[in-house]
Amino acid sequence: MDATEVDAALFDVFGTMTDWRSSVTAELAAVGARTGLTADWAGVTDDWRRLYRPYLGKIITGAMPWRPLDEVHRLMLDEVLPRHGLDALGEAERAELVRAWHRLRAWPDAAAGLESLHQGRLITGTLSNGGVGLLARLTKHAGLRFDCILSAELARSYKTDPRVYLTAAGLLDVEPHRVLMVACHPDDLEAAARVGFRTAYIPRPLEWGPDAPPVAPPSGVDLVADDVPALAQALRV
Amino acid sequence: MDATEVDAALFDVFGTMTDWRSSVTAELAAVGARTGLTADWAGVTDDWRRLYRPYLGKIITGAMPWRPLDEVHRLMLDEVLPRHGLDALGEAERAELVRAWHRLRAWPDAAAGLESLHQGRLITGTLSNGGVGLLARLTKHAGLRFDCILSAELARSYKTDPRVYLTAAGLLDVEPHRVLMVACHPDDLEAAARVGFRTAYIPRPLEWGPDAPPVAPPSGVDLVADDVPALAQALRV
Repeated sequence: MDATEVDAALFDVFGTMTDWRSSVTAELAAVGARTGLTADWAGVTDDWRRLYRPYLGKIITGAMPWRPLDEVHRLMLDEVLPRHGLDALGEAERAELVRAWHRLRAWPDAAAGLESLHQGRLITGTLSNGGVGLLARLTKHAGLRFDCILSAELARSYKTDPRVYLTAAGLLDVEPHRVLMVACHPDDLEAAARVGFRTAYIPRPLEWGPDAPPVAPPSGVDLVADDVPALAQALRV
Repeated sequence: MDATEVDAALFDVFGTMTDWRSSVTAELAAVGARTGLTADWAGVTDDWRRLYRPYLGKIITGAMPWRPLDEVHRLMLDEVLPRHGLDALGEAERAELVRAWHRLRAWPDAAAGLESLHQGRLITGTLSNGGVGLLARLTKHAGLRFDCILSAELARSYKTDPRVYLTAAGLLDVEPHRVLMVACHPDDLEAAARVGFRTAYIPRPLEWGPDAPPVAPPSGVDLVADDVPALAQALRV
């Protein structure tokens, strides 16, 4: 793909730009240490995150009314904690843990790659299931510079609903075929491609931890880059 | 006002952060030079901008359906050009001039003040009548770093409609009384205050040029600062 063919690059955030697993596990362990509870904290994080697709799927299909991601995260947490013998975790701790998703750490390459992209011609933005407020806090906390914050919330749905991608392109006033979606998740890229976006894949083999099975790279994407600086290099125009 | 009382600072853009008058006048003059037309270009700019409040007022009251600011700017331009004997300006030039509002220059103090604020605790954002795409392009072009881009477009209305301010606070997930509105226009600050926002006034005596009559500072604002760095200093927490 020639970089002159796009005007904006929109990034998935949970997984593609941030290491949610180690960040949330550290916050769970800190809450556990404070409250005297023990558990396989990485296992709690993984189980929490595994409920993500099923819950969002219910909202996308209309089986559950739309609600902000913080509320979805809370429902998922309340379902996961008893499975790990953590029913005793109180209201204040649960609310604090939901906010852990506002404080994720960036992957080490992400900030530098975004700064490079910011120097170029393309408009950069998030396109995440996180809410606008969550993303503003997260990107500030993590040192990730985007030209704008776009969220599935602005379509009152979640990825991979096509309306999420089309709403973002409409707000940017850029034709869908001139928007590049950047993600480490094949389903996100496939959904973006279905509405006409161009697509770039960045593998994040550590997303689910060092012992996770390898993810097969998607076929049919326009670009593959090892990390965000490599993407910026490929998009230099 | 104690800076710990707010979590976000939202900025008006046309006038408060950017010098629309000299920017648009320069683009009009450039188009004039290219097409062999002459006019009082600053006068054209002023007349164009004077139609802003009447047009947006029609949309806020429902007398005209909502449409993106680029389209409103075009209607206003088409009304102003004949008054200055500029009927001959063609379609391409009119479209280019509407995009002049995407390329405004920042006031000399604005970028440095925003960088200082970015280092602090508050979330910074635009809250402008410009569309999301316009604002993303403008802030990138002008070197203005905001943590997020918020626009009246997200409420499908225009300032001073209270829904614009409440939609922004809702998307940030911040209570209205913990949001600071920053503007050089008293009516913007008064409307923000009516929905519970805190308010900061920055005078921009050159907004309408060096010969414009002085603007009386508004009463009842929480903060007055000479420029954006002075505001950042006042908000240091």
